[in-house]
Order: sequence, then structure tokens, then C-alpha cells
Amino acid sequence: MKNLKLAAGRADFSRSVIDVSGVKIGGEFVVIAGPCSVESEEQTVRTAIAVKKAGAKMLRGGAFKPRTSPYAFQGLGLKGLKILDKARKETGLPIVTEVVDTRDVSWVGEYADVLQIGARNMQNFSLLREVGKSGKPILLKRGMYSTLEEWLNCAEYILAEGNPNVLLCERGIRTFETYTRNTLDLSMIPAVRKESHLPIFIDPSHGTGILSMIEPMSLAALVAGVDGLEIEVHIDPSCALSDKDQQLSPAQFERLMKKLEATRLFMLELDDKIDSGEMAPTEAKDRGAGGRQGSFPEDAGRGGRKDRMVDDSSGGAAPDRSEIGHFKDSVD
Amino acid sequence: MKNLKLAAGRADFSRSVIDVSGVKIGGEFVVIAGPCSVESEEQTVRTAIAVKKAGAKMLRGGAFKPRTSPYAFQGLGLKGLKILDKARKETGLPIVTEVVDTRDVSWVGEYADVLQIGARNMQNFSLLREVGKSGKPILLKRGMYSTLEEWLNCAEYILAEGNPNVLLCERGIRTFETYTRNTLDLSMIPAVRKESHLPIFIDPSHGTGILSMIEPMSLAALVAGVDGLEIEVHIDPSCALSDKDQQLSPAQFERLMKKLEATRLFMLELDDKIDSGEMAPTEAKDRGAGGRQGSFPEDAGRGGRKDRMVDDSSGGAAPDRSEIGHFKDSVD
Amino acid sequence: MKNLKLAAGRADFSRSVIDVSGVKIGGEFVVIAGPCSVESEEQTVRTAIAVKKAGAKMLRGGAFKPRTSPYAFQGLGLKGLKILDKARKETGLPIVTEVVDTRDVSWVGEYADVLQIGARNMQNFSLLREVGKSGKPILLKRGMYSTLEEWLNCAEYILAEGNPNVLLCERGIRTFETYTRNTLDLSMIPAVRKESHLPIFIDPSHGTGILSMIEPMSLAALVAGVDGLEIEVHIDPSCALSDKDQQLSPAQFERLMKKLEATRLFMLELDDKIDSGEMAPTEAKDRGAGGRQGSFPEDAGRGGRKDRMVDDSSGGAAPDRSEIGHFKDSVD
Amino acid sequence: MKNLKLAAGRADFSRSVIDVSGVKIGGEFVVIAGPCSVESEEQTVRTAIAVKKAGAKMLRGGAFKPRTSPYAFQGLGLKGLKILDKARKETGLPIVTEVVDTRDVSWVGEYADVLQIGARNMQNFSLLREVGKSGKPILLKRGMYSTLEEWLNCAEYILAEGNPNVLLCERGIRTFETYTRNTLDLSMIPAVRKESHLPIFIDPSHGTGILSMIEPMSLAALVAGVDGLEIEVHIDPSCALSDKDQQLSPAQFERLMKKLEATRLFMLELDDKIDSGEMAPTEAKDRGAGGRQGSFPEDAGRGGRKDRMVDDSSGGAAPDRSEIGHFKDSVD
Repeated sequence: MKNLKLAAGRADFSRSVIDVSGVKIGGEFVVIAGPCSVESEEQTVRTAIAVKKAGAKMLRGGAFKPRTSPYAFQGLGLKGLKILDKARKETGLPIVTEVVDTRDVSWVGEYADVLQIGARNMQNFSLLREVGKSGKPILLKRGMYSTLEEWLNCAEYILAEGNPNVLLCERGIRTFETYTRNTLDLSMIPAVRKESHLPIFIDPSHGTGILSMIEPMSLAALVAGVDGLEIEVHIDPSCALSDKDQQLSPAQFERLMKKLEATRLFMLELDDKIDSGEMAPTEAKDRGAGGRQGSFPEDAGRGGRKDRMVDDSSGGAAPDRSEIGHFKDSVD
Repeated sequence: MKNLKLAAGRADFSRSVIDVSGVKIGGEFVVIAGPCSVESEEQTVRTAIAVKKAGAKMLRGGAFKPRTSPYAFQGLGLKGLKILDKARKETGLPIVTEVVDTRDVSWVGEYADVLQIGARNMQNFSLLREVGKSGKPILLKRGMYSTLEEWLNCAEYILAEGNPNVLLCERGIRTFETYTRNTLDLSMIPAVRKESHLPIFIDPSHGTGILSMIEPMSLAALVAGVDGLEIEVHIDPSCALSDKDQQLSPAQFERLMKKLEATRLFMLELDDKIDSGEMAPTEAKDRGAGGRQGSFPEDAGRGGRKDRMVDDSSGGAAPDRSEIGHFKDSVD
Repeated sequence: MKNLKLAAGRADFSRSVIDVSGVKIGGEFVVIAGPCSVESEEQTVRTAIAVKKAGAKMLRGGAFKPRTSPYAFQGLGLKGLKILDKARKETGLPIVTEVVDTRDVSWVGEYADVLQIGARNMQNFSLLREVGKSGKPILLKRGMYSTLEEWLNCAEYILAEGNPNVLLCERGIRTFETYTRNTLDLSMIPAVRKESHLPIFIDPSHGTGILSMIEPMSLAALVAGVDGLEIEVHIDPSCALSDKDQQLSPAQFERLMKKLEATRLFMLELDDKIDSGEMAPTEAKDRGAGGRQGSFPEDAGRGGRKDRMVDDSSGGAAPDRSEIGHFKDSVD
Repeated sequence: MKNLKLAAGRADFSRSVIDVSGVKIGGEFVVIAGPCSVESEEQTVRTAIAVKKAGAKMLRGGAFKPRTSPYAFQGLGLKGLKILDKARKETGLPIVTEVVDTRDVSWVGEYADVLQIGARNMQNFSLLREVGKSGKPILLKRGMYSTLEEWLNCAEYILAEGNPNVLLCERGIRTFETYTRNTLDLSMIPAVRKESHLPIFIDPSHGTGILSMIEPMSLAALVAGVDGLEIEVHIDPSCALSDKDQQLSPAQFERLMKKLEATRLFMLELDDKIDSGEMAPTEAKDRGAGGRQGSFPEDAGRGGRKDRMVDDSSGGAAPDRSEIGHFKDSVD
């Protein structure tokens, strides 16, 4: 994609890793979990303890809630950030929380480890530049009606301020379908892996809005090569002040995490399993995810775009990084 | 959903199985593969042999091609059907092919084992009634702009003629995004599993239009619980007369099939793996995909729709069928 | 647009005129009115008399109704066509009615003066070819999710069979907005006038689904240069079996027709009014292709498309047909 | 619509009028015109003089340009505002200009008469509250993927701060169609007139992105009852730094303004023309735009929403304000 000087995929297919208090986003599979909104200290701290126990590596929670109506619960603001801070002290989990106003970036940044830019603010260019200047890790959600190209250009806004720490999160797009809250676009996983070096996450909670879909979509995202997930978990979902119908209980989250971990370990070995059966001695030299019989040569895709995953099993091919994902323990 | 007398999910959560020459669609994981268009006997027969070898259970190939322009290749018609017949004789693979006109239903049905209704004809109600009357198995693609509700109502048109043999296939919907050919909506897998008893397939070829996305999306669909896939494979994609950029080569297809099979076997045991860690003796009796700690209670979803997957880990719960899918060998 | 050999706009900007029993579609402003469905002889004949009295030039009425559910009223079929025939005998109004099945084209064509292809069948290519072969005038509705390019290619299917008598009708497209039934795309009026020579109509009834919007949208379409309108009118809308909320009563229709006629006469003289005031001798020299001060030179539009409407009132230039529309009595 | 305490239509159907330096937005038909971006003093001042001469009542010009890419021209900022100030001094035209950052609201408000919120910032709730607090007139553009309900709720955010001076501007929504830059949704004119008391404008420049469409869409909007238009005009469009293909030249704008004025005067008398022919003595008492034979009774519209324009020709009906619009000189 033209004009993406900083966000575009690299020639060597290497991918960015963002270190957040030791959590290597882009280098290991990361689940960010927590309540939609910070509602009280008890609710947030108990939820943090529960998600940590289940294996989450970071805590999410909204202190500033973008609501369609001005009369809906808007979030606890500073009080909410202090509660998140308490939860971090209790659990050691780094905090991901949304910032909505350029004037708040520096002081919210005092509390947050990762600043989240919500879907409705994806093209709030002032805010992008401001969080760019902050240098803090930024989780940039895709706008509900934004193309991949616009999304990567928004990442470019942040990167252009000298802040390389951007992770992308797809959360569903708006379509004509009303059965789901949004239409979760999992094809963004291979798309981002091809067009950019930035980590790609999926938010299956907002992406579907339906509790029973969160598990299948999370597993699907994982095997498609996602770098991580952002999932809403509430200590008692029936009492939630927002997104009541889509937040997991701790028990549901724990079960999901077990499935994810088992599946992740399986995927780690999948390529080797497949290859050990078919790799003849001559081909052994060309291993790397791309250099195999049956991998994908350069493809044009729609509109003549060239597939950056060139494969040449005759030798010396650049590895097809889109496949490796987090099925390897080593950090990219 | 109201008015779906025949297509709606059943109270006992049982799912339909359609037997096509011994292939149990809905009862086992099925991959339908073959070229976009039937172009010549050599092309189609060689492709059939290749996909069979790789594990496909049915052959697809278009004899009547719906094209945007009247001047584009329209398919070989009857000649194409005879070629498919030859390929079936050679390989034993049942044939899936599109029918586009009410007048063709009976004689195309002489050749096809499964009649496919393409996306542009999803709401061609005359055609739906006609294939309903034929009694043949029907693969009903989702329209590129059709809601789940409209889609299931179209299935209802067919079922209402006394033909229970309908399988649904999601192939991507039209959105504002232009990076992919369509936006593949994998959430339709849990959605159909919840709202209907009919088998649900995914077509990742048309769904993305990008070769390198076919593998991740196929694996994603599998772990999300899909009943099968319909994939375009061509003996020599660079020479294809249609959809040149998205047809797999036999080698690529073979590799994908290996991954799918390994993943399928893994998923078969996943629930047991998870449970053996956590299942206490009393709960053992209530196993079945739904009766577990951490599974999903009734959820409202958007607009107050009730989640039909009721879970009660206290015992006697109806099994959560959405999870079982084809990770069991037994026929549902 | 490439590949439109027959449907594309002509070099001399001339526009097609389709003569239907003396009604010159494309040559005069035409309103087609009538009930959504033919429900009874009394309902249809009375409605026909009423719309004729108000100035409608053709009668519409559905005998075959495409319904989302198979259990909804499907139309009276042959009986409905006979009723339409009676209405024509009574009023002299030519009949426009939808045909849904290739097998019906010839015998429905015995009753209809114009065969309508509904939105859901826009890309039913078999049907397009069949109505093409019939030679009858065809009203081709835009699919609810079809691009202009696809739409014109569907017209090409019909024209390629040797049938030049195609009129296009925009009826709203499917978007995320749910306030209106569809989103009426009036920009299709100048778009079709630029890219094709075929007449362009608007259906504000399906296009909005809201009674009170029909008048403003009809007037808007008229001044934008539309060739005609297709409007639902029912002798007693509260009793209608379909589209109850969007059918006009005869009184409402009559009022609308008066406004349309007055506005049409006004628009006929508008260009002259403007010109007679402004053409000063010095400006005459600058005439040339953009040739009225303030007319539109060739413009690129999005994606570099050239605007084909060059205007030069100095003489010898092809007139800018997009502006003239039906504000002249003479036939194009 | 629920929860719209301040933005919802009033029981007496009265509409808001916003006085901006004597220009009565909502009370008279207003055209806001000017360049997409402020590029230089000469460009902006000359354009301002030209549009004023043609009848524009306010000047638009962007000093802060939201661009997809961070490397594109971002606007002249403060320098641009000073240029606009000069243009106002020269012509007396009030200024409409976009503000993009909460931190800029007060000082940009020193220069602007009307603060514009762009489509990408429609749901920038912090910004909405801040401009609400400013008390200045606000032009709120509809988001390219925002529903009417979301849009009116955003107006509510501003109104809830005690600032009643909000005018809405529809500028096209994002759809699958790529022929036009956006799909201009003129049905928002009657929709807003029904659901809210706020003035409704149309921006045909961004709404279509095609020069030759601006005139037909402007005329269409006018007869549909719009309160005004926001149109891009550049002294020399071929040299524009942004939106080169859709800015009118002064001559083109002048011609358009003449047509608009003539059409406006015509529409002012249209209802009377129609009525004088049909109004019987008893009906005379019930006049008022709504109280006529053939006007629109309460209609349900889609989803059972009630049409607030109740009409009862039996007497005493509330006037159907959606029709009056600006075809009367008197201020509502």
C-alpha cells in the first residue's frame, strides 16, 4: 500500500514486538481481559484476579466510555483509573484503557500501560498524533466502517510521531446484518500480517456481541494466526452496567483460556507434523514456513495487489511469516 | 426466528445429516473441492483425481457460470456436465454443480448429486421451489447481501416443498472493504448452528478472493465448528479461465488437507482434554458438550434473541451441540 | 465503463426512447402507478381508474410477489394477470408487471406491456436472456446491493439478445441505516444519464418505505432529471395485503401528480430563464465546450472517469443532455 | 426516538432558527460556499468575493484538514484562520470552519462564526461536549457510517451542554458503490424534518465527489425541503490542493445559484398553486400545509415507527411542516 512508510510490512517479513512490562506483544500470544467498564473497586479487582488466574497477561477496563447517548453511563473517569491502578498492584497485570481526549493523554498515560484508541476515534487525527507523541504503547481499534488502508494509515499517524509501539485490534465492522452486533472480519488477520509488521489482535466481544460466539471466534482467530485477543470478562455479568450480554464470567473465561492454550500448543507443532511426513531431503534446506511444497506462491489478490508472501521452494525463499505466528515460543 | 417452521433449530438440538452417495454431510467433516469452471475433460478429471487423493469427499465444478458481463465465459453447459460425469466415474466423487434456471433443474439433476444455488440466485424463489420439488440435495449459498434470516427463509422455501436435504454455505458478504473480494463472515457458523439444524459450510475461495487467505480461513472455520468447506482447486491455476487468482494448486490443496485433518483430530479430543482436568465425578454423567463448568448459559444476544444453547452444569443439561461439530466420528 | 457495447452512453448523447402503446418512455416524463399486489378485480380496476385520472401513463401491479417467507402471500398469478388485463381494457393504461421465472416469460408477456425484473432477480442471468429474447420492453430494477456497473451489465445481457427496450429503475440500496427501508440513491439519475442512453426511473415507494417521504423524493428525482417514477398506489392502503405502510391513497397520489406536473413545466423553462438573463456579448467568446459560463467541463470524477457531458451552446456541440431531461416536450 | 430530550421534533412542529450574524439558518434558505481548504490569502479572498456575488450567505474553508494519510496537506492552521478572517472583513460573510481538537475549540472559536464537526469526528464525544460548552453555532456532519439515531444523539450531546445552536449536514454515507465517492442520502431531509427541529443541510460536494452531479443533487435537495447547502467552490479548481475534482468554479457556482433561486421561488408558490385549483370552501378552513385533501396521514414507516406528521383533513390538523421548508420567506 502506497504511502505507508512506517507501517508497511518489511522486506524481511520480521514483525514488531512491543514490550509492555515484560509482556511481549507480537512475540507471544497475549490475551487482554477484563470488564467493559470499571464500575467499582471490588468488581474490577476481583475480575483482575480471576482473569490473571486464568492466564490473561493484561487487564482491560474502561474509565471513559464512549456511549451513543449522552445520558448513558459515561465511565468513572479518574476514579476508574485509580481502581485500575489498584488492580495492577494486586495482580501485576499491565493496564489497557481507552483515552478519548487529547487533553487526557498525558495524565491517563500516568495510569495506563497501553492507551487504547476506540473504533469511533480511529480517525481522530489529533488524538493519534498526541498518543504518538506520548511514546506509550497504543492499541488502535479498527473503525467500524474503515478500510484496512485507512486503518494502517492511522497507525502511520502514530508511528510518524516517532512512536513504534502500535498494535492493531479488529473488533467487527458495520454491515447490513443485524443478527450480530458487528460482523467480525477475521480475514484482517492474514491481511495485516501481509501488509504490515504490526501485531494484530481480535476483539470477539464487540465483534459479535453474542456470548456463545466468543469461544468459536476466539479459537478461529488463534488458528488464523492472531497475535492476541481482547476479551470482556466481568465478575458477575448479569450486573454489568454496560455490554451485559457479551461479557464472560470468570468460569467461562477460564475454560476458554484452557482451550486456547491447548490449541496454541497444537498449532506450534502443526507445521512440523505436516512436514515430517512430506519433507524429502532436498526440500529440508528450504524449510521456513514458506518454502514448502504446497505453500502459496505470489498471488495477485483482488485488484492486482501482489501477495507479499513469495514462496520459492527451489531455494532461498523468504519464509512465509504469515503462518508462523505464535505457534513458536521464540520471540520474532 | 419466526416463521421458520422447518429450518429452525430443533428442541433436542439434533442436526440434520444428508447422505450423498455415502458421504454424510452434517455427520462428518466434508471438503468439496474442484475447479471454479469445468474447462476441459483433462483439466477436470485430473483435478478430480488430485483432490480425491488429497482427501476431498466431493467434486465441485461449474458448467453454468454466472458472470457479471454477458461477454465473459459462460461455462460449457451440457458438455461440462458430461465431463463432470466422467470425473465421477473415474474417482467415485459425488458431483456438486450449480443450476441457474428452473428449466434446467431436472436434467441437470440427472448429472449432479448436489445442486448448488449460487449467491446471486439465493432469492430466486421459483428456482428454490423447483429444486425443492426435485428432492435432490441442495447447497444453498448465502446471498452477498442477505441476512441470516433471509437465508434461512430461503432454505424454508426448499424444505416446504418436502425436500429436507439442504446445506448452507457462507461465501462472504459484500461490504465497503475492497481489500478482500468479499468479507467472509465466519460468525455464521455458530449462528447457523444455533438457529437451524441444517449443515453449515464455508467457501473461503470466493469469501476472500486471495489465495494466501484460504488456509488460515479454512482452519479458522474448522475450529469454529463448520460442517465442511467448498474450495476451488485447479490442476494449473495460472491457466484458469475464471477466478485465476484464488484457485489452489493440487499441492497447495494437499497441504491444506493435511493441516485440516490434523486439526480436526485435535479438536475431537479438545473438550475431553479440557475436562479431564476439571471434571469432578458427579459432573461426569452430564458431559455432552454443554454440561460443563464454564460453558455458556442462555444469552440474549443483540435485540433480545435468546441463545438456544442452554447450559446447566448442575446436571441434566441439554448438550450444547454447537460445540460438538465434527470433532466426533459418530454421526449426529 | 468497459465491455458495455450496447448499454453505454452514445457519442452524440442521444437517449433511447421506448414506445409502449404510444407512451414514449425516455421521451416524456412518465409515472407508472398502481398497487403493490393485484388483490382483487375491484381493488385493481378502481385503483387503475384513479391513477389514470390523476395522470399516470401506465399501470403497475404484481401478480407474482417475491416474499422473504414462503408462507406470505405470493400473488394471484394468472388470475392476477387477467385482472390487470381488465384494468387495461377499462382505462387504456399499459401494464407493467413482474415476471419471476424463465418459464413464464412468454405467457406473462401475453398480458404485460412491460415485463419487470425485480431487485432480487437483477442478476438472474437466465431470466435476463429470456426477457431479452422476448423483445418486450423490460423494466430492470437495480439489485439492492448491486453497483451501477453490474446493473448496466445486466442491461447489456438483455440488449445483447437484440432487445433494445430496457428502462432502468433505482429502488434504493441496502445499507446499515434502518430508519428507511432502503437508502434511495438519487445520484443514480445523473450517473445513468452519463454512463448510458437508457431511460432511468426511480421507485420512491420501495426506496424509502415511508409514506411521507414519497412526495419529497419524487420531486427531488424529477428536478434531478429522472425519466419517470414507479409509485405504489392502493385504493385503500389500510387494507393492502402487502406494503401497507407505503402505498399512497388516490387522493395523495393526485396531489403529488399535480405538484410533479407544475414542477416539470417550471423545469422546462428553467434553463432558458437562466440563460436569457446572463448571456452577455463578452462572455459569448468564452463559450466552447464548457460553453456556457458555469456549465460543467469534462470532469474526472472519482477514479479518473471522464465526464461525458460536454456542453457547448455556441452551436455544433452535442447538447448537455443530462440537464435537459424531460423538461422539454419533444422526444429525444 | 427515545432519549432525545432536546433534539427531538417538537409537538408544535416548530423548527429552530439559528441566527449567525443576521443569517437565519433554519429560517431562510442558506448556501454556505467556499474552498475545500484555505490555501492562500488570494485564493480564499477571491473565492469569497465570488461566492458572495453569486448569493452565498456564508463562507466555508478548511484550516485543519482531516486527511487519510499523515503525509498529505494538513491545512494552514492558525494562518488559515487569519485568512478566513480577512475574507470575512472583505465580504461580510460569516465563517464556517472545522475544528478537530478539544484544545482548539476556544481559540478557533475566536475566528469562526460556526464551528464545523467533520464526519470522522461525529462521535468524538469529548469534542461534542466542548463545542457544546462554547455556545457557538455548530455544524454537525453525519458520520459516513452513522445512523440517523446516532447522529441525533450526537446533536443531543451538544444541546445537553446548553448550546441550542446545532445544524445538521448530511454529506453522503459509505456504501458498496464505488462510482460515487459516497452515497448521498437525500432521504435524511424529510427524516430530520420529522424526527428533529434542527436545521438540515446537504453537502453535495463530498456527497457525490463528482462535479457534474452537484447541480442535480443541489436542486433535488432544495425541492425535498432542505434548509441549506454547503458547497465547495474554488477560484481555480484545477489548482486546488484537495478535492480538485469536485470543487465548482465561480462561474459554475453562479449558474447553480441562479437555478436554485428560481426554483426556490417556484416552490414557495407551489402549494398555493396546487391548492387554488382544488380547495373547496369547507376545506379552506383546514389549510396549513398539512390540512389538505391528499396529504399524508400518520404512517408507520418501517418497524412501526409513527410518522409525526399527523394529518387530518377533517379539520384542525397540525400543519405538515415537512412540506413548508423554505418556500416561505417568513421565519419559522
